[in-house]
Amino acid sequence: MIMKTPPKALLFDVFGTVVDWRGSIVRELRRLGRSKGVSADWGAFADAWRRGYHPAMDRVRSGKLPWQSIDVLHRMILDGLLREFGFRLNESEKRDLNNAWHRLTPWADSVKGLTRLKRRFVIGTLSNGNVALLVDMAKHGGLPWDCVLSAELFHHYKPDPEAYLGAAAVLGLAPRKVMLVAAHKNDLAAARKCGFSTAYVRRPLEHGPQSTPDLTDDRRSTFNADDFVDLARQLGA
Amino acid sequence: MIMKTPPKALLFDVFGTVVDWRGSIVRELRRLGRSKGVSADWGAFADAWRRGYHPAMDRVRSGKLPWQSIDVLHRMILDGLLREFGFRLNESEKRDLNNAWHRLTPWADSVKGLTRLKRRFVIGTLSNGNVALLVDMAKHGGLPWDCVLSAELFHHYKPDPEAYLGAAAVLGLAPRKVMLVAAHKNDLAAARKCGFSTAYVRRPLEHGPQSTPDLTDDRRSTFNADDFVDLARQLGA
Repeated sequence: MIMKTPPKALLFDVFGTVVDWRGSIVRELRRLGRSKGVSADWGAFADAWRRGYHPAMDRVRSGKLPWQSIDVLHRMILDGLLREFGFRLNESEKRDLNNAWHRLTPWADSVKGLTRLKRRFVIGTLSNGNVALLVDMAKHGGLPWDCVLSAELFHHYKPDPEAYLGAAAVLGLAPRKVMLVAAHKNDLAAARKCGFSTAYVRRPLEHGPQSTPDLTDDRRSTFNADDFVDLARQLGA
Repeated sequence: MIMKTPPKALLFDVFGTVVDWRGSIVRELRRLGRSKGVSADWGAFADAWRRGYHPAMDRVRSGKLPWQSIDVLHRMILDGLLREFGFRLNESEKRDLNNAWHRLTPWADSVKGLTRLKRRFVIGTLSNGNVALLVDMAKHGGLPWDCVLSAELFHHYKPDPEAYLGAAAVLGLAPRKVMLVAAHKNDLAAARKCGFSTAYVRRPLEHGPQSTPDLTDDRRSTFNADDFVDLARQLGA
């Protein structure tokens, strides 16, 4: 496909788009549960942990809470879930479990696709995850980012426009020179409202093997791809 | 050397420490001058361009100017120098010349030393250069940063403490877990005041082959190194 304005930078949503948060969190919970002799529906625990994330961010976005990093929000939700599931951990175990979000595993195509895309574009994160989380994750998973941008730097969570516009501004680029890559159509829609171009990437397993997600094309996106290698191919990288 | 508190992250000053700004700028000026049939003392031009940088930043630091990126400050200084040297360029040539700071060449040991250090530490920039400049430079020179941090993200130029403390905060690290690596003793002193550990790297050619810089050890720094490969060796990386 020929684009009238090819992007200079590709910014990536991370949780679900680049890394398999659910599979990774379930593995860590299962391992920890086994070491403590506790069993539970770890898939349900992971889903509830993630479900708590949007309401928690919305409390920050609406001003009910002052700025809090995702690490802090994850920990607030975790403390409630541990009580609910009756899973007793000491402080150091809780801290380590909360840090599981720093160790999420990339999808099988992520490193290969990003490595190809990096040859042709500036590639970076644009995640609600905090910088420390994203830097640890990149080292853990070998993600070859040119830059790590986070909502934390702008004190505005996506989908607030300040997050997208702030990222374009620090890259010194007009929004139309930036493409957001994400597996979530609401994130893509918010980016387009700010003038970004967008690419939708299908991630059928984000919510686990039992889920039945909407994987239809995002008709407003310039690209629809099955994974990052497919996106690299479509972008000629 | 055994450190009581080994750092988790190494943050690098960039202009002069990682890249040879003077050699790179002189080369670009000479090439442009030749193509326009103009000759001048390009070393003196480069030195004057760089000399304008601290007073310009100080106007921002003191609040006389609102926040301006280094790109904007470089351009303000450049416009004055072009008049002074009687070097006539059109707008697109001026813009391209100003962008020479995005294309500075790494010192011969930089990529090799950083690649070794990256295996053991989080490595990032902590530069007064803006994010776009640093990202372009990293792609141009193959600098393998884990993260690109800039004074721009904190709207405080070094040596303001907010720049050092802001960088440690977004990395989620206590200042004592961060080491600043720089060829400039005043930068190192300001970082130590914020609780960072420091490493001094000698860069004898930063100000050109005719300069006679002070290359004595920085006695307050934990490490004194001849280049990044030497630093990697001393840090066991």
